[in-house]
Amino acid sequence: MNRIYLDHAASTPMLPAAIDAMRPWVELECGNPSSLHENGRRAKAAMDEAREVLADSLGCLFAEVLFTSSGTEAANLAILGSALANLEGGRRRILMSAVEHHCVLHTEPILRKLGFKVDLIPVDREGAVDLNALDDLLGDDVLLLSLMHANNEMGVWQPISEAFSMARGHGVLIHCDSVQSYLSKDLSEVEADLITLSAHKVNGPKGAGAIHIRAGIKLQPIQVGGGQEREMRAGTEDVAAIAGFGAAVRAHRKDPSLMGGKRALRDAFLDALNGSDAALTIADRHRILEGHAHLRFPGFDAETLLIALDQAGISASSGSACSSGSLEPSHVLSACGYSPAEAKEGLRFTFGWPLTPEVAKEAAHRLLDVVARIEATRASRR
Amino acid sequence: MNRIYLDHAASTPMLPAAIDAMRPWVELECGNPSSLHENGRRAKAAMDEAREVLADSLGCLFAEVLFTSSGTEAANLAILGSALANLEGGRRRILMSAVEHHCVLHTEPILRKLGFKVDLIPVDREGAVDLNALDDLLGDDVLLLSLMHANNEMGVWQPISEAFSMARGHGVLIHCDSVQSYLSKDLSEVEADLITLSAHKVNGPKGAGAIHIRAGIKLQPIQVGGGQEREMRAGTEDVAAIAGFGAAVRAHRKDPSLMGGKRALRDAFLDALNGSDAALTIADRHRILEGHAHLRFPGFDAETLLIALDQAGISASSGSACSSGSLEPSHVLSACGYSPAEAKEGLRFTFGWPLTPEVAKEAAHRLLDVVARIEATRASRR
Repeated sequence: MNRIYLDHAASTPMLPAAIDAMRPWVELECGNPSSLHENGRRAKAAMDEAREVLADSLGCLFAEVLFTSSGTEAANLAILGSALANLEGGRRRILMSAVEHHCVLHTEPILRKLGFKVDLIPVDREGAVDLNALDDLLGDDVLLLSLMHANNEMGVWQPISEAFSMARGHGVLIHCDSVQSYLSKDLSEVEADLITLSAHKVNGPKGAGAIHIRAGIKLQPIQVGGGQEREMRAGTEDVAAIAGFGAAVRAHRKDPSLMGGKRALRDAFLDALNGSDAALTIADRHRILEGHAHLRFPGFDAETLLIALDQAGISASSGSACSSGSLEPSHVLSACGYSPAEAKEGLRFTFGWPLTPEVAKEAAHRLLDVVARIEATRASRR
Repeated sequence: MNRIYLDHAASTPMLPAAIDAMRPWVELECGNPSSLHENGRRAKAAMDEAREVLADSLGCLFAEVLFTSSGTEAANLAILGSALANLEGGRRRILMSAVEHHCVLHTEPILRKLGFKVDLIPVDREGAVDLNALDDLLGDDVLLLSLMHANNEMGVWQPISEAFSMARGHGVLIHCDSVQSYLSKDLSEVEADLITLSAHKVNGPKGAGAIHIRAGIKLQPIQVGGGQEREMRAGTEDVAAIAGFGAAVRAHRKDPSLMGGKRALRDAFLDALNGSDAALTIADRHRILEGHAHLRFPGFDAETLLIALDQAGISASSGSACSSGSLEPSHVLSACGYSPAEAKEGLRFTFGWPLTPEVAKEAAHRLLDVVARIEATRASRR
């Protein structure tokens, strides 16, 4: 039985172009990009080539893109770096949606120590921020708004245009965590000061993230040491991973069907579940990421189903990989108003290259089999 | 003309075993090690295998080793994580040698914001800390001593046994930056609470560092988000780089000549410089790292020589790669009492696998040629 990997929101397989781009930097070249000699200059050139590709994809300047080791580090830098750069001044509040990734939410204790207050923006039943609530929370004492482009768990697109324009009116810095949406939507029109990205969510390697820092925005580095990345992010750069990141982005831009094909995969899966007890958390497929399916089988704990699915050769998840293994109910579903029991039922199936619609359909059948088998066992016990 | 890479302290070529260990995690597998399904568990197992190898090399417990993205991040975590975990309490001073790497020294502004005072321990002419000065600086208000095992620029071994036992007497936490010394000396007898390491200095990949946190020592994470690395270091782990790190360490332990051969390479180079104007900053070769040669040609600016050497096919450096391109004289040589002009003369040649003594000798000849040519040009201008 072939394993079917339906956890593309957790991490994605590498594109051949990304593998090829990494190879010389793993197998042949060892220059430190900070070194001034030829080995170092070649490494720097490889990084800058990737930087150019990312800048082009974001419609921004070359110098506005910095590399980090992950999306988490990039988001930490966006938020903590903004706070550290603005310890003086009257803006002491930071707004975040209640459904941000933990790499955003968990900056709160550090922000508190630095003298900032974090206010969470509530969301509706589908996970989208409540713009009226945001309006009430905004004020001239707000330093930063951190709002993700699309939620990593339920997949819902946030109303970023409206939210960011409201924030702009109060002179608030704007961070958009675009880890899950990058290359699915054109980010060049996202009016954010800080955009954070991750390579391994777009068929690039683990070990590379990036941050777009709009020209003129001042951050303080949070990883300190050498003067790498324009003195904004110390530490020897992972040239191989950065080269792989650039190549993955270039490949996606050359062939939009790699991302565009996600919708057909997801739809083949969902269509095959038609008529079952699967309850979609968001019915309107246009409201969510193309490759995302988030649902519950009411009365079925996600953990039980995921273990059975794993045995049936399906890799899926209940939400963020970073929170897997936690016994807490999903903070995202809880924020949407689901009860603790319901919030433990959420299942996330996420799709992408190189899956085919046939395989996606086959996965749906295995899922239905698993549910039916558990149901039968339960019935026999009654 | 073959290029000769003599900057092994900046970064090293990957061992074949490390390349092989990375390959499946770059080319075939995409599991997120936090995921609970089979793909995730395999990724986690690969990381844990590397963790086991490192723990074994350090003579410590499996759970005492955490992975980071670099030595810089590991050192930041050791120092800032200690500070954040000890914001309460009377220990408000942190001691560092004046010749630490910038990833240690540059934590000072953040430490200051957190309410700590950093005191620098002076060093002698060869870069070793002054133990009398350390004794004067120690006290029961000191939280942490950060002292590197061997200096990355001059290569001098620090008197860590004496220094750490003095610090221990005052109940001071001890961080030993062992990035340059790892696998050259047995670290299992280093009496530190925190030891930091980097993969790409020991023929592993860029993108992986590690920290040994002695059981019982409490740190606060500095990169926050998911619960990775026992909730001490958030962010999706770079499985490929970590697997490569483990394989490199295993290969070194299996074949100690990989590290042990450095001395013969360095000595072949230095012997070939005998009789020239090269002034060794440390005459006693036993006082410095086996693969390290640090010298000056008095009257010759390092930058001029390095550019000419680069053109002659030799990659070398003036000190830390992380500080390359800086116009400031070396902070290490300055701390040793060299004048600004002298401190701009330091040249670092660092050796390692797969160089041969013949190649090292050839490099020395090219160096002498370069010096002679510059000297001739100067003479003709007089």
